[in-house]
Amino acid sequence: MTYAIIGTGAIGGYYGGKLANSDFPVTFVARSDYSYIKENGLKVDSPTGNFHLKGINVVPFIKDLPKVDVVIISTKTNSNKDIGEQLAVSINKDSHILLLQNGLGMESDVKAQVPDAHIFGGMCFICSQKRGPGYIVHLDKGTLEMAALEEADLDILHRIKEDFIFSGIECSVSSSLNQSRWKKLLWNIPYNGLSVVMNANTEQLMSNPYTSELIKRIMLEVKKGAVSAGCHITDPMIEGMLASTRTMTPYEPSMKLDYDNNQKMELHYMYHNPIKEASASGIQLPSVRMLWEQLQYLNSCKVRE
Amino acid sequence: MTYAIIGTGAIGGYYGGKLANSDFPVTFVARSDYSYIKENGLKVDSPTGNFHLKGINVVPFIKDLPKVDVVIISTKTNSNKDIGEQLAVSINKDSHILLLQNGLGMESDVKAQVPDAHIFGGMCFICSQKRGPGYIVHLDKGTLEMAALEEADLDILHRIKEDFIFSGIECSVSSSLNQSRWKKLLWNIPYNGLSVVMNANTEQLMSNPYTSELIKRIMLEVKKGAVSAGCHITDPMIEGMLASTRTMTPYEPSMKLDYDNNQKMELHYMYHNPIKEASASGIQLPSVRMLWEQLQYLNSCKVRE
Repeated sequence: MTYAIIGTGAIGGYYGGKLANSDFPVTFVARSDYSYIKENGLKVDSPTGNFHLKGINVVPFIKDLPKVDVVIISTKTNSNKDIGEQLAVSINKDSHILLLQNGLGMESDVKAQVPDAHIFGGMCFICSQKRGPGYIVHLDKGTLEMAALEEADLDILHRIKEDFIFSGIECSVSSSLNQSRWKKLLWNIPYNGLSVVMNANTEQLMSNPYTSELIKRIMLEVKKGAVSAGCHITDPMIEGMLASTRTMTPYEPSMKLDYDNNQKMELHYMYHNPIKEASASGIQLPSVRMLWEQLQYLNSCKVRE
Repeated sequence: MTYAIIGTGAIGGYYGGKLANSDFPVTFVARSDYSYIKENGLKVDSPTGNFHLKGINVVPFIKDLPKVDVVIISTKTNSNKDIGEQLAVSINKDSHILLLQNGLGMESDVKAQVPDAHIFGGMCFICSQKRGPGYIVHLDKGTLEMAALEEADLDILHRIKEDFIFSGIECSVSSSLNQSRWKKLLWNIPYNGLSVVMNANTEQLMSNPYTSELIKRIMLEVKKGAVSAGCHITDPMIEGMLASTRTMTPYEPSMKLDYDNNQKMELHYMYHNPIKEASASGIQLPSVRMLWEQLQYLNSCKVRE
């Protein structure tokens, strides 16, 4: 299949790079990095093997994309608002849109903008960072878990999965988007927010007894929200997530990088929506709410939109 | 009566200065600022009138104090651990000790060290700051509320109150130390901690809708702890405290000044004890606990003890 990658950063640069490195036709959208990538290509450093793609297909705007089979969106969720309008020329009613983003509820919001498209969500269990224009450093992990917004689209998702696996990406298809999104939130909600508020990486947060206890408590709270939304999350899953974070390469989550780079943080899908969804089931998430309020305060201190 | 002030900072410098300015015999203990104050005296700027006391009685160590009627302790609670031993030469069994400190449970801890002494607590509703050695700037408020650890000592507390009022200090005696301590915590717990974690003053915290909502929720939680400890705290008291903070001069609470000055924060009496006391009555304070854990993390990043 043919692919478009919207957002050539830590996520899109890595997964799109892997696809292109296996000769799938991939067109990258890179707004601020366009000229640099056009000239120098895309460089990915990874423990699974470095590669440098020269002369790749790159365009500066979404409207410049050719028609493709699969559009992968790996920008920040803050730019999802008018994505349907921008995509109008690149998609048709058979188009497939895969959102490699964090949070809850992005798929149904995009579906509302492009009602004919087939929408998928991808949960990236990966530590990777953009170190410069067209330069991605993959640090650890890398599994991609995908799910369909509508069950009828599962077949095509399995075809996409085959392309990913062919490209050397550890990849699986989950039968429940909701379950997968909440499972990812279990990690994202405590680590993203606390890394910003405490100005700390994962190792610093886990080696302090107070913050590691707090992280566990937040996870148990997110679990309550997930269970109220009909998901199956167990305490051993939480213990496993804590243990695996404790031993992984010290990592600054994407929200901390955004904050440190004076970018607005992605609070709507990662905090507001889970709090709202749990609350609709009568479940309050007080620690998640407090963290969200702290992040909202810090977001309001940032100048740039 | 004769007075000793242990800790010539924002609190001790102001209240001790007011007493000395009204010709009460006051001896100040100033450790690091001793030489400066010995030579230059004590300067207090206040909206109620500036004054500069020259040639005041100042000593560098607690052990150098003369015998006095009332020992006022206005150091950080972190130095309460061995205060009894240090006070041994300056007090006798009729001595009165007034703790102008923040938190819960300091009075009984000091009583355990000096069982014969009469112990009082003072809640300072004041915005004042030490701007330099022997230089105190009083910004706003100033009321002092005092209470006795043991009811039998109320008479002498009223005599102390008369001295304070004679010195121009707005002052009252409360019949319940526990009630007064919890009422003060209602303000101290949210504003001290959040000013550090958010790096913000009271005005910044109150003008943001998320943090002002969080502050109110934390106050309501502290209220639950207070009620579980038998105190009478009402929602209108909380509304009044929020309204009064909203209109007062923008203020950086003492914990923020400590943190910014690379000093250890006073977490034991202000956070640990209230959480523990509420928990003993079966009441959990999740937001207070979360704030405490965040502050513990930040405290652990500080080098100095």
